[in-house]
Parts: sequence; C-alpha cells; structure tokens
Amino acid sequence: MDPRIEDHAEVLVDWSARVDEGDNVVLSVGPDAHELGVAVAETVGERGANLHVSYSSREVGRAYQLAHGDDFDEDPAHELALYENADVVLSIGGSRNPSEGADVPTEIRKAYSKARQGVREARLDADWVSTVHPTRSLAQQANMSFAEYQAFAYDAILRDWESLADEMANMKDVLDDGSEVRIVKEQTDLTMSIENRVAVNSAASVAYDSHNLPSGEVFTAPHATEGEVYFDVPMTIRGERVQDVHLTFEDGEVVDYSAGQNEAVVGDILDTDEGARRLGELGIGMNRGIDQFTDNILFDEKMGDTVHLAVGRAYESNYPEGHEDEANDSAVHVDMITDVSGDSFIEVDGTVVQRNGTFRWEDGF
Amino acid sequence: MDPRIEDHAEVLVDWSARVDEGDNVVLSVGPDAHELGVAVAETVGERGANLHVSYSSREVGRAYQLAHGDDFDEDPAHELALYENADVVLSIGGSRNPSEGADVPTEIRKAYSKARQGVREARLDADWVSTVHPTRSLAQQANMSFAEYQAFAYDAILRDWESLADEMANMKDVLDDGSEVRIVKEQTDLTMSIENRVAVNSAASVAYDSHNLPSGEVFTAPHATEGEVYFDVPMTIRGERVQDVHLTFEDGEVVDYSAGQNEAVVGDILDTDEGARRLGELGIGMNRGIDQFTDNILFDEKMGDTVHLAVGRAYESNYPEGHEDEANDSAVHVDMITDVSGDSFIEVDGTVVQRNGTFRWEDGF
Repeated sequence: MDPRIEDHAEVLVDWSARVDEGDNVVLSVGPDAHELGVAVAETVGERGANLHVSYSSREVGRAYQLAHGDDFDEDPAHELALYENADVVLSIGGSRNPSEGADVPTEIRKAYSKARQGVREARLDADWVSTVHPTRSLAQQANMSFAEYQAFAYDAILRDWESLADEMANMKDVLDDGSEVRIVKEQTDLTMSIENRVAVNSAASVAYDSHNLPSGEVFTAPHATEGEVYFDVPMTIRGERVQDVHLTFEDGEVVDYSAGQNEAVVGDILDTDEGARRLGELGIGMNRGIDQFTDNILFDEKMGDTVHLAVGRAYESNYPEGHEDEANDSAVHVDMITDVSGDSFIEVDGTVVQRNGTFRWEDGF
Repeated sequence: MDPRIEDHAEVLVDWSARVDEGDNVVLSVGPDAHELGVAVAETVGERGANLHVSYSSREVGRAYQLAHGDDFDEDPAHELALYENADVVLSIGGSRNPSEGADVPTEIRKAYSKARQGVREARLDADWVSTVHPTRSLAQQANMSFAEYQAFAYDAILRDWESLADEMANMKDVLDDGSEVRIVKEQTDLTMSIENRVAVNSAASVAYDSHNLPSGEVFTAPHATEGEVYFDVPMTIRGERVQDVHLTFEDGEVVDYSAGQNEAVVGDILDTDEGARRLGELGIGMNRGIDQFTDNILFDEKMGDTVHLAVGRAYESNYPEGHEDEANDSAVHVDMITDVSGDSFIEVDGTVVQRNGTFRWEDGF
C-alpha cells in the first residue's frame, strides 16, 4: 500500500478524531475510497476501538432516492440508533463522479435531507471528521493528472498539524483581541467589525472543534462591512464557473456587484434572502500545503495566503456563549476567495498582521 | 445495467425478503457487488422502505481484526442498535477474494465472532436473506469464464420460485408423513429414520423460513442411520479437495469411512466430538437451475437431483416445537453430496419418491 495512505489514516484517526480504546466508530467508505478504508480500519483496530463500516455511494443514493420519490419516513430508527450510539464518525469522500446526483430532482434531495435531520444531528453530536481520498475523478475535477493530484492532496493532508495549530493560534489571538479587520489589495479596500466575535482555530481536529481533514484556516463572523473587495480565485457555484467577482458594501450589505463570468449566478445568490447580502464568514487560509486552486472548496478555502469571505449564514461557533442566535441567518453560505500572496496587506485595528503573503510572526515587521 | 441484475434485485427484495413500505432495511454490499447494490437500493426505494447501506469487505475486516488482536468489546452498542432496529437485513456476497481472511489467526476470528454474538442474533431476528453477486473471483473459484459463471448463477437465482416452492411442498409432505427414508445407488444403500421430524421447504424466502438466495432444497434431520453411502460430488472442506467419500453407519453412527482424496480431513471431522459421527441433515436438492458443481456450498447443495447429508449439528427448525433441544449437537456441520440423477432411487416408507432423477409427481410411477 502507498505509505501516504497509511499516514493519512493515522492523521485522521489520531490527530483529527482522537479515537480511543473502546470508542464506537462508524467509518463511511465510498466505492473508490476502499484503500483508505482498509488503512483506517487497521488504525482503528490498533487503537482498540469498535468498528462499523457503512457504504456511501452516490450511485446507490441516487438510485434509492429517484425510485423512492419525495415522501420519506422521518429518521429511520435503525440508522438513528447507529449514530446515537456512535462516539466517532469518520467519513471518507472520494466518489467516482461528483455529479452523480445531478439528475435527482431538487425536491427529492431536499425531502431526503429534511427527513434525516435527526440522523444528521446525531452524527454531528459524535466526534465527526470528513476527509477525502484522492481519486481519479477528483484529479479530473482539478484538471490534474492522478499522480499530480495525489501529491497535491497529500501535501495538504500530511502536515505537521501540531505546529500549524500553534501558528494558527497566533492568528486566533489577534482576531479575538481585535475589533476591526481591513484588507487591502488590487481593487480591494474592505473593513469589517469583529467586535464581540470568537475566532475558530480550524486545525483539522475535534480537539479544536474542527471537522475537516485537511483544514488550516482561522475564521470568524464579520459585520458592519464597508468598502470593496475583488475575488480573483475562480470557483464553481451551482455548477457554473464564476470568476473575477467584485462586491461593494455599505452598512454591512452588498450594494453593488459584478463578475467577469456568470454574473447572474452572483445576483441570484445575493437575492436569496436578506441575510445573503451580509457576510457570514471571514476566513484566513493558512495551509501552505495547498498551493493551487482545484475546484474543491474543502481544499480551496484553506489555501495558504488567501482570504475567503462568505455571503450568507454565519457559524454559531463564532459567537460568544448565549449570543448564538445573533448569527447572520440565510439559506445560503457561499465562499469566495482572494489571493493575498502578492501586493496586499491585512490589518487588525490598524496593525498589519499579514503583508504580501508573510505573517507578522514570520518576519517581525 | 445487465437486466439480470435488476431481476436479481427484485427476486431478493420481493420474493425472498418481502420488503414492505416503511421497513427499516440494512443492505450489506461488498466491494465487487456494487452493481447489485445499486439495483437493490432502487428496488428498496420503489417499495417505500428505509435504507442503510453497510460495507462488507473482507480486506477491511482482515485489516481491522489483525490490528486489533483478540480482545474485542462485546456487541458494540452502535452496531447492536442498528440491527435491533432493522426489520430486514439483505447481505450481498461477492467478494474479491474468498481467501482474503486466510491469514487472520483462528483465535482472533473466533474471538471476533464470539464478541459479536448479540449483534448476530439481532441480525437473525430480522427478516434476513443472503445472496451472492456473480463476480470474477467466484468464476475463478468455479473454474469458469466470467460470462459462463454469470449464466450459471442467474439460472440458479432467477427461478419461478412460486412454482418451485409448490413442487418442494410435495416433497415436504412426503417427508412429514413418512417415517423412514432409504437411498439406493452405486455403493449406497442407506436407511434413516425421520420419525418426529419436521421437513423445511427451503424456497429462498423468509415466508418459508429460508434465508439464502438461491435455495431450492427440502431438508430434515435424520437419525438411527444404517448402511453405507457414497458421495461422488467433489467438495472443498477446510481448504482441501475431498472426493469419493464412503461412510458406513451402524446404530446411527459412522463406524467406517474412506475417501479417494484427503481421507484424513474426513477423519478429523468425524473425530471432532460425539455428534460429528451422527447425521445432522438430509437434504434433497431440487433447484434444477443448478446443474454443475462450482465449489460453493450455497449453490452445490441445492443442485437438482442430488442428495446431501451433513455429519454434525442439526437445525432446530427440523424438530417439533418444544423438542428443539433434541437436535444433534456438534461443533461441525459438514455437507457431502451424492448425485441421484442416474441409476438410483429414494424411497419413503417403501414407496419410491424419486427414481433416476425423476420425481413421482413428474412421472406418476
């Protein structure tokens, strides 16, 4: 077996999910993620935990949902009981074709998702981690050869997470102590309040309340946004390539927008509801193992020396205890990414924290 | 998709498992049985049942067990709860390599099996059915091309089960009404008592208390066996090819044995314990879709115009209510098969029920 697969399994089980002896583990494996499934099963066995393996195939899910129609029973007792009794849930993505569900009507997908809300909550109550096994279809999505994509994915996943978590703690401290963030670059001068917000150090471990491997970002929930911002990293939104987006904010809301490609998609998103015109997230990408865009948000938004902003729904984890209901509410949460490796700076309360892709603690400026 | 796969799924879901709207179904899929998994998911969806899909991979199981060692927790709560809340359990065999578990030490396999006894009982309490997806590795085991093996397997699986169940009911009636069975062919003249026994019509459906697809046999638990029997169908026992077995019975016990190949394996089995020298099963194979030996007991023992006898453990289902504890007890249950399509006859209480591969009701003799 490729030793990188074994290393991936160890990072997932030990750093990310903190699997202990006697834990009840649900491992979810897709059809092309078999090899990582074997490696994770071995590592879970070494830790003395108990294993149930479920099969997550989009082809199976599509066939079932299409045939069933949209009237699903709520939270089937057998699956609910499985997750209610699980301590750890490990999900390995890596499907054969990310578009496999494309011809399932939206109302069926929504009805299925709604009917499984209790199952989903039970899963989220466990120590859950989602990761991705590099597959040929993901390489295709990234416009890369398979070998190149594997190298890319393992660079992102096989970090020294302890050391990255320590570095990200610096950024969390800066944001927790600060009141205002300013981002300046080409066509960009944006200020946001982060007063009364809690930054999350997303270090790819349940110990940091971070549930994706790879991760590597520090994020918070900005408000009172003013100014303009330019997103130069391309992205796929609702199946469409969107590029060169400009947003202009006044009083915390988008008042003007444009895009170099598929501008209408941006307009549709902003028109979803009231919350869709406000920011739900400011994220600082700090995983320098990720150095190129691969059209997969799990990787893209963690890219070192990028910043992403999401319009729409905010995460409750960014609000102080008792204030979770103040989180910006919206049916959407759409991330857009801007490169800050070049001529640019990020200030917190007037002090530069990153300039031209170098952090203050790296350079001492 | 091969329409035979869709037909297989319908037989499994409708005839075998009798899946109803609202049933909680666990579907277990192995890595090479993906296509049948998709077809079964579709059919389960059409019936309006609820689906959880688990992944049964011998590679995953081997990696887990080898790494874990033999000290397993008893009946992990998450997996136990899954099966306790399941109405139907569908298991699709069809692994990549039936020998994948060969290097897991016996004590680990035994410990795992023992620790999961409650899980296994919960699964058996559901309406469970095991079937097999024809794979390349099963074709290899059968010494057949893949296409030939598929044709063979679907001939066995895609029967008119209703009509076969009716025909097998004739045989069950004969055995339930009878007291003594006699089998006569080359080197064979064996008599067995079936007094106070209940024959099972194994028609590949939970409605007949039959849990394998394909099936197609009527079986009972003989005793007081006298005479000699010759098994001319080859078989693999404990990984060894065993052929041309002769057994001689007196007072219900084997008093002499020989084999043309690997005779020592037969001796080992008979020496296991006291019950291993007595018969645990007499089965009449009635599935004429199965017309050749493929080294897979799920198929071999159902072959039309064969009879199989097992030394060792008997099934409680062959005993009248309240008498289940009289079932022959042994750590082994080893089936051996004899061809009755040629010069041979089977009598019940002195009346011929099958002669030269033709049943009484087919010919009226």
